[in-house]
Amino acid sequence: MQKQGILLILSGPSGSGKGTVVERLCQNEDFALSISATTRSPREYEKHGVHYFFHTRDEFEKMREQQELLEWAEFCGNYYGTPKKYVVEQLAEGRNVILEIEVQGALQIKELYPEGVLVFLIPPNLEELGKRLTNRGTEDKETINRRIQRALEELELAEEYDYVVINDTVEQAAEDILAIVRAEKLKSYRNKDMKKTFKGEM
Amino acid sequence: MQKQGILLILSGPSGSGKGTVVERLCQNEDFALSISATTRSPREYEKHGVHYFFHTRDEFEKMREQQELLEWAEFCGNYYGTPKKYVVEQLAEGRNVILEIEVQGALQIKELYPEGVLVFLIPPNLEELGKRLTNRGTEDKETINRRIQRALEELELAEEYDYVVINDTVEQAAEDILAIVRAEKLKSYRNKDMKKTFKGEM
Repeated sequence: MQKQGILLILSGPSGSGKGTVVERLCQNEDFALSISATTRSPREYEKHGVHYFFHTRDEFEKMREQQELLEWAEFCGNYYGTPKKYVVEQLAEGRNVILEIEVQGALQIKELYPEGVLVFLIPPNLEELGKRLTNRGTEDKETINRRIQRALEELELAEEYDYVVINDTVEQAAEDILAIVRAEKLKSYRNKDMKKTFKGEM
Repeated sequence: MQKQGILLILSGPSGSGKGTVVERLCQNEDFALSISATTRSPREYEKHGVHYFFHTRDEFEKMREQQELLEWAEFCGNYYGTPKKYVVEQLAEGRNVILEIEVQGALQIKELYPEGVLVFLIPPNLEELGKRLTNRGTEDKETINRRIQRALEELELAEEYDYVVINDTVEQAAEDILAIVRAEKLKSYRNKDMKKTFKGEM
């Protein structure tokens, strides 16, 4: 079966638990996380080169001009983008690459790479989303309300994604995504060499 | 998430091990096997109403005329078809229904039910297929050669299927198909009510 890894494009509202689910998936050595470039300020625990590559606006715009980004978007006044080289290398080595990106960027990538798989992660319901954002304790009430409003807007775009995963528990959400990747690798259009393999010609 | 079951349309050359894989899947109570109608003679171990509904050509043609079949095909001089009622009922109850049918019938169903999922099962290679057919000991050499020729022809149509599963071991093939069903249930087009559920409107 196909050796090329799957490009997994994961989006979901702030508070959907993307980070935790991605962490769980990356415990599996078949998965690699694409590290984004951003101009937003690091949160307390975030490290350059681990969580993000943190850049000034000038630096970011230079990368963009030199076509070193797979996609980019502006969100809440900050730039976010995906450095191209790392993703391409990992896929070629058969590793599945997770891109955790905003909706705008996700749809850009799907246009460039139709073989990429779009997964939209959502919390079980609106109430739970509010709870998670409040418990995080990093944003004030106004920011939380803005994030909830934004989540409702983004949800409208979930239909353009290939899959929707409800993050009830991290285990279930990670298992759902593993099933999606396993199934995608079995898609017939990804296995056009299968006939030759069967006949012993490869 | 969606409650309707998945219609799983499984094909593969004679000797691909469809029967064993289906048996394994049906140990799971979420799966129901659609029982086909046929005019071919029963094999020694086959029971009417369990493996097939065995009918005369006259009876079969009457069912066909009365639109009681979801699809039908003629293969090696015999009719095969799928009684409609049982399938529809099982899907509505949320059970996944497996249709084990020939390529012609599978493509007919996909046209009628685009939400059906086509899976093509193949043995790991041509040599293994020959071995399995010989070990079965139910057909003479000429029939086996005809079946191998037929397998090669059918393989050309595998590209029209959604997924291709290699039956290396029954466990792996069954797990592949379980992943496909799990992933298919997460497809966004099957979960259009998701927005309402999220907002607590359902």
